[in-house]
Amino acid sequence: MADAERFEQGRARFGELMGRDIKSESGADEFMDVTFENLFGDIWNREGLSLRDRSMITCAALIALGKEEELKIHFRGLLNQGVTADEIDEMIIHLAHYGGWPNAVAARRAATSVFEKTGAR
Amino acid sequence: MADAERFEQGRARFGELMGRDIKSESGADEFMDVTFENLFGDIWNREGLSLRDRSMITCAALIALGKEEELKIHFRGLLNQGVTADEIDEMIIHLAHYGGWPNAVAARRAATSVFEKTGAR
Amino acid sequence: MADAERFEQGRARFGELMGRDIKSESGADEFMDVTFENLFGDIWNREGLSLRDRSMITCAALIALGKEEELKIHFRGLLNQGVTADEIDEMIIHLAHYGGWPNAVAARRAATSVFEKTGAR
Amino acid sequence: MADAERFEQGRARFGELMGRDIKSESGADEFMDVTFENLFGDIWNREGLSLRDRSMITCAALIALGKEEELKIHFRGLLNQGVTADEIDEMIIHLAHYGGWPNAVAARRAATSVFEKTGAR
Amino acid sequence: MADAERFEQGRARFGELMGRDIKSESGADEFMDVTFENLFGDIWNREGLSLRDRSMITCAALIALGKEEELKIHFRGLLNQGVTADEIDEMIIHLAHYGGWPNAVAARRAATSVFEKTGAR
Amino acid sequence: MADAERFEQGRARFGELMGRDIKSESGADEFMDVTFENLFGDIWNREGLSLRDRSMITCAALIALGKEEELKIHFRGLLNQGVTADEIDEMIIHLAHYGGWPNAVAARRAATSVFEKTGAR
Repeated sequence: MADAERFEQGRARFGELMGRDIKSESGADEFMDVTFENLFGDIWNREGLSLRDRSMITCAALIALGKEEELKIHFRGLLNQGVTADEIDEMIIHLAHYGGWPNAVAARRAATSVFEKTGAR
Repeated sequence: MADAERFEQGRARFGELMGRDIKSESGADEFMDVTFENLFGDIWNREGLSLRDRSMITCAALIALGKEEELKIHFRGLLNQGVTADEIDEMIIHLAHYGGWPNAVAARRAATSVFEKTGAR
Repeated sequence: MADAERFEQGRARFGELMGRDIKSESGADEFMDVTFENLFGDIWNREGLSLRDRSMITCAALIALGKEEELKIHFRGLLNQGVTADEIDEMIIHLAHYGGWPNAVAARRAATSVFEKTGAR
Repeated sequence: MADAERFEQGRARFGELMGRDIKSESGADEFMDVTFENLFGDIWNREGLSLRDRSMITCAALIALGKEEELKIHFRGLLNQGVTADEIDEMIIHLAHYGGWPNAVAARRAATSVFEKTGAR
Repeated sequence: MADAERFEQGRARFGELMGRDIKSESGADEFMDVTFENLFGDIWNREGLSLRDRSMITCAALIALGKEEELKIHFRGLLNQGVTADEIDEMIIHLAHYGGWPNAVAARRAATSVFEKTGAR
Repeated sequence: MADAERFEQGRARFGELMGRDIKSESGADEFMDVTFENLFGDIWNREGLSLRDRSMITCAALIALGKEEELKIHFRGLLNQGVTADEIDEMIIHLAHYGGWPNAVAARRAATSVFEKTGAR
C-alpha cells in the first residue's frame, strides 16, 4: 500500500476513534506522517481487537505511565467509544496501584479537564 | 469490615480472576495481607468495571511498564476471562508503540511462557 | 472498621503529616475516598515506621521518579516533620545519581517553590 | 583532591555503609573508578545527611524504581545501619503505593534473598 | 509497498546493522512481522541519519532505560558499526547521570556479556 | 584537582557545548556546584567520546525518557554541535519506538520551541 494511502487510512481511523473528522494532510510534518501511516494506519487498523478495547488499553497504558497530555486526547476517544466518566474514574483508581499514585493523580487532572470540556460530567 | 473479612474477599476475588481456588491465610505475611485486603479485597471488588476489563487494563499497564514477572500471573487471569492468546498478541503489538519496544519484547517473553504452560496455543 | 472511620483516620493522619487540619468529606470524590481510606488511613497509619521516616521515603521515591507536582505537597510535609531545607537539598543531590539528573532538576523546581512559599529559606 | 584519594575515600565510605572492608583498586575498571570517586567518594561522603538516612533514601528510590539487583546490595547496607527487616517490609508496603505494585514485588524478592543470606530473619 | 517487501527491507536493514545475514520469514509471527516491516523496514531505513548514529541513539536510549536484554542485541550492532568497547564504556558512564546508576549497572552487565562473546575485549 | 578548578572546567565545558559563555560562580548553589564539578567537569570532560557524540546520546536518553524541560537546553547544544533540525526530527521519530510515543511527543514540543527560538527552522 502506498504511504499516502496508509496516511489516509490512519487519518480516518483516528477520526473514527475521536468521533469527528480529523483534518490533516500527508507530507506536511514527518512525525505526523509516521503517526498516521504507521501507528493509526497500520496498527490501530489491525483486526483482532475492537476499537473500544484498543482505546481502553491505550488509556490504561497512559494512566500507568502518567502521561497527562496524551490522556487529554485519548480520554476523549474513550468517551466516544462509549466508556463513561465513572468507568474512567474506576480505571484511574485501579491503576493507581500498578503505576503508582503520582501517575494516577496526573491522569485525574487530565480526566477532570476532559470531563469539563466535553460535558461528560 | 474487619481486616480478616477483607482478606477473605480479596482471596476470593483473586481466585475468581484466575479461575481456581487460591489458598492463602491472613496473618502469615504482611505484604500479602495488604495485597489481599486492599488491592484485591477493596479495589478489584469495586463495582463500575467488569472483571474482564479490570484484568485487561491491568495487563495493558504491565505491558507498557515491561513487568515480565507480573505478566506471567496476569496473562493467566486474562486468558481465564475469555481474552484469547491472539488478542494478547494484539495488545502487545499495539502497546509497543506507547510503552516502547523493549517493554513489549519483555511482555512477549511472559506471554510465550504462559501460552506454553496453559496450552493456550 | 467502617469506610467512613478509615477515611476519618486517613484525613487525620494526613493532617498530622502536614501540620494543619485537612478539611475533606467522605463521599464527595471516589479517588479521594480511596486515598484517605486506603493510603493514608490504612498504610500511613501502620506501625513500624515513624511518620518522619514515611515522609522521607515518600519524598525519596518522588524525587527518583521526578514527580514535581506531588513533591510540592510532600516537601511541605517533610519540612513539617523537622527535616530542613538543607537536608532536602542533600536528598536531591544524592538521588540525582539514582533516578537521573532530569528527575532531580524537577525535584529542585518543586523544592524552590515550596521553600519560597513556606519561608523555609 | 587527587582522583586516587577520592577513590580511596569512596571505597572507605562504601565499606562503612556495608560494615565490612571493600577490596577494590583504583584504575582497574573505569566505571568502578567513577562509582568510587564521584558517587561514594564525593556524594555519599557529603555532610548534611546521616549515613543511615542516605542508605534509607537510596533504598526508597530503588524500591520505587523496582531495581531488584541493586537492592540486593543496598538492603544489606540498610540492615547494617540498624534498620530492621520489619522496617524494610514496611518501606516496601508503603512505597508500593508510590512506585506501583510490580516494583514492590521485585523489592520483596530482593529483600527475601538478603534476609535469608544475612540471617536477618 | 507491499508488506512482504517492507518485511524483506527490514530484514536486510537489521542484517546490515548486525553485520550478518538474518534469517526470518514473513508471516510466521505477527510481532516479528511488525518489527521487520514497521520498525526496521520503515523507520531504520529512513534517510536523514546514518546507520551508525541510529545504532548509537538506540543504545543510548536502552542504557538510559536499563533494558539489559535488548542491549545484548544492540551492543553487537554498535560494535559492528565501528564503535569500540571503550566508547561503549564511556556511553554507560556518561548516561549513568541521566538514566540513573541502576540502569547503567544493568547496561554494564549486558556490555560485559557482549564483549566476552564477541571477543571485543 | 580542587573543587573550584573542577567547577571552572565544568563551566567551560558546558559553554563549549552551548556555544556561548556560561556565567556561573562556584559556591552559590550546592546542586549547581555538583552539576558543574561532577557532571560537566568530570564526566563531560572525559576523553573517549567526542562532544558531538556526548551531546547526541544525552539527547537520545532525554527523548526516550520524555524529559521535555531538559531537552529545551540540550537540543540547543546539539544544534550547536552541528546536528541539524531535520536530524533531530529523525531522532525523535526513531526513538518513539523505543521510549514510546508519549515521550516522543514531549520531545517534539521541546524541539519546536527550540527551533523557533534559535531560528533553526
